[in-house]
Amino acid sequence: MIYLDFNRTTPIAPSVLEAMQPFWAEHFMLPGQEHPQAQAVGEAVEHARECVAILTGCDPFEVVFTSGGTEANNLGVLGVAGDHQAGHLLISAVEHDAVTMTSEKLEQRGWDVEVVPCDGSGWVDPDEVQSRIRPGQTRLVCVQLANATTGVVQPVREIADRCHNHGVPLHCDGVQAFGKMPVDVVQLRADTVSISGHRMYGPKGVGALYVRRGLDLSPMMFGDPREMGLRPGSENIPSLIGLGAASNLAARCCVDAANNLSELRDRFVAGLQSAMPDAMSVVAEDAERLPNTVSVQLNANAKAVQRIARTLVIATARSESPPDEMTRALKAIGCSDSEVNRTLRISLGWTTSRDQIDRAVDLLAEAADTCAA
Amino acid sequence: MIYLDFNRTTPIAPSVLEAMQPFWAEHFMLPGQEHPQAQAVGEAVEHARECVAILTGCDPFEVVFTSGGTEANNLGVLGVAGDHQAGHLLISAVEHDAVTMTSEKLEQRGWDVEVVPCDGSGWVDPDEVQSRIRPGQTRLVCVQLANATTGVVQPVREIADRCHNHGVPLHCDGVQAFGKMPVDVVQLRADTVSISGHRMYGPKGVGALYVRRGLDLSPMMFGDPREMGLRPGSENIPSLIGLGAASNLAARCCVDAANNLSELRDRFVAGLQSAMPDAMSVVAEDAERLPNTVSVQLNANAKAVQRIARTLVIATARSESPPDEMTRALKAIGCSDSEVNRTLRISLGWTTSRDQIDRAVDLLAEAADTCAA
Repeated sequence: MIYLDFNRTTPIAPSVLEAMQPFWAEHFMLPGQEHPQAQAVGEAVEHARECVAILTGCDPFEVVFTSGGTEANNLGVLGVAGDHQAGHLLISAVEHDAVTMTSEKLEQRGWDVEVVPCDGSGWVDPDEVQSRIRPGQTRLVCVQLANATTGVVQPVREIADRCHNHGVPLHCDGVQAFGKMPVDVVQLRADTVSISGHRMYGPKGVGALYVRRGLDLSPMMFGDPREMGLRPGSENIPSLIGLGAASNLAARCCVDAANNLSELRDRFVAGLQSAMPDAMSVVAEDAERLPNTVSVQLNANAKAVQRIARTLVIATARSESPPDEMTRALKAIGCSDSEVNRTLRISLGWTTSRDQIDRAVDLLAEAADTCAA
Repeated sequence: MIYLDFNRTTPIAPSVLEAMQPFWAEHFMLPGQEHPQAQAVGEAVEHARECVAILTGCDPFEVVFTSGGTEANNLGVLGVAGDHQAGHLLISAVEHDAVTMTSEKLEQRGWDVEVVPCDGSGWVDPDEVQSRIRPGQTRLVCVQLANATTGVVQPVREIADRCHNHGVPLHCDGVQAFGKMPVDVVQLRADTVSISGHRMYGPKGVGALYVRRGLDLSPMMFGDPREMGLRPGSENIPSLIGLGAASNLAARCCVDAANNLSELRDRFVAGLQSAMPDAMSVVAEDAERLPNTVSVQLNANAKAVQRIARTLVIATARSESPPDEMTRALKAIGCSDSEVNRTLRISLGWTTSRDQIDRAVDLLAEAADTCAA
C-alpha cells in the first residue's frame, strides 16, 4: 500500500502515542480533582497548551482545545455570530465544509453570506475581499490558510490587514497548514485560527482554536466552564497531551519536512510528466502551494482515472451533488465537471519515501497505459 | 492512594485500551477513504456502534457518537430547541451542569425554563413533572437517570409516560448510570439518552446520544454530514472503538459489578457507622440509589471535613457561587450550607477492593478523631 492521502488523515507519530500512554489508565484523573496526581495532570495539560502556543506563535491562554478541526472551525464562525443579530459574512470560495456548511446555517438564520471568488490558480485576492467588506455590516471574514486539494496558500496577512482596517475579524482555517509550513499567528494577524490533531500526526478527535486575546467569542456548548469559558466538558486528557506532543514535533520538524516534501513532490511531478508526456497537467502549478500537495489532471476518461486512482491511496472528487470539498475547490478555479472527475489529489507525508514516489509514478503510468489500451 | 471518585472519572479498562491500539498508527484511515483498510475501519466503527446499541437496548442507527457526555447532553437539549421559536422547558432540580447551563442559555434566548423540585430524598415525582407540563407550550423535559452526588435513580419511565401523554419528548442524562445499573432505553422510554465513555472505563473525549427513531433533532455543529447528519467532523476512530469496547464490557459485567459494588458500599457505610457512631449520616439513605455511590455527612466543622476528605480521593462540594453540581444536588434535597460543606461523596469502582474499603473507613475515622482532638 502506498499511502499518499496525508491531507485527509495521518497516522499518529510514535512519540505522540508514547506521550499519551501514561494518561490512559495510570494518570487518569482530571485536573479538577483534589489530589497531587490530578494537579500533575493539570500541569501536563497546560504544558500541552504551551506546545500548541509555541507551534502557532501565540500565548497559551489564547489556545482553546476542541474535539477537532471541525469544532474549531465551527467555534471560529458561530462563536463570532453568537446570538447577535444577523449580519454580513464573507467566505472564500475554497473553504472547507466545516466553514461552508456553518455559513449555510447562518444563512438560514438570516445572515447574508457572500462568497469571495478566487482566481484561476486558486488565489484569493485581498482586494477582492476588501471590495466586498460592508463597513458596519460585515461581521466576519473566513479565509483558509491552505487548500486541501490544490495546496494553494492564501495571502492571509494581507487579507487580515484589510479586514482590520474596517474593524472586521478574520477567521482562518489553518487545519491543512500546520506541520507542512511554518505558521505564526502574530504574523498572520488572523483573529482565530483552527488546528486539527490528526492532520499533523497527532490523535484524531482533538484540535484547537487560536483565539486572539480580547476577541469576544461565544461558546457553542454549555456546562461547567473550561477553556476560558469557551468549551465545557471533562478534559480529553490523553488527546490533549497528544496534541501537545504533535505540536512539539511539528514545530521542530516542519521546516526540514517541508524541504523534503517539496523535493519529493517535484520528483513525483517530474516522474509523471516524463512517464505520461502530454497526458497530465498540474492544478494551480504557478501558485504558492503546500510542499506536500499536488493535484494532477489526467487526459483519460473519468472512469479510467478512478480506476487509476485505486492503485494508490489518493483522493478523487466523490460527489457533485452536493459538491464535496474537492469538487468545490476545483470548480472555484474554473475546472469543468470533466476536469474535476479527471483530477487526482496526491498529498505526501513525513513517512513518504523516494522509493514510494517512484513506485507511485510507475503504478499510475502503468494503470494509465492499461486504461488507454 | 485510595481512589473512590469513580463518578468523576474512571481509568480506562485494559481490554478497552487493547481494542483501541491498532487504530492509532496501523489502521489509521478514515471510513470515507477509498481503500479496503478504510472500509475495515468503517466496519469496526459500525461494530462499536452496535456494542453501544446493545448496552442501551436500541438500534445501531439510533446511536449518535459525540465528543463526550457534555456534547451528548447539549445535543439532547439544543437539538430539540434548534432554531425553533422559544418555548417552555422543564428540567429537574438535580441535573448536571451540561443540562442546567444549556437551559440557562436557552433562557437567555427567551425560553421559559422551569425547575421541577425533588423531594427530601432527591426523588423527582412524576406527578410533579406532569403538573408543570403546559400542553402546546412545553417542548422538552430533562430528567437524569441517576445523580452523581446522591446516587438517586429517577423514575424516568413514569416521567416519560407522562411527557408522552402530552406529546412532549424527554431527554435523559444517563451518564452516571451506564456501567453501574442495567439501562434499557426501550423500557425507559426516554427520547434521548446521553452516555459518556470515561464514566464507564472507556476513553475520555467520547460519548454518545441515543436518539429515538423518528425524533427530529437539529445538529449543533456543521460540516460534511456524519452520524445521521447530527455530528460532522472526521471520526475519532480509536475513541469510538474504545467506547464500543467499554459498552461491551459494561453490558457483560454490569449486573455482577452492581452486586459487588452495593455490597462494598454497604460495608463502607456499616464500617463508618461503627467507627463514628452518631458522627455521620447517609444522604438520601432510603431512596433507590446507584450501587456504587454514597454521600455521607459528618458532624464536624466544614474545614475539618475538607481535611478528612484529603486522606482519600473523594469528592466534596467546591463552589457555592456559582453552585457546583454537588452543591446544587444537596441543596435540592434541602441541605443547609453547613450540611453541604460537611458532605463527602464516595463513589466506588470495578477495581475497588474490600481492603480499600476497610482502609478508607479507618483513614476517615482517624482523620475525624485527629480533627476532634
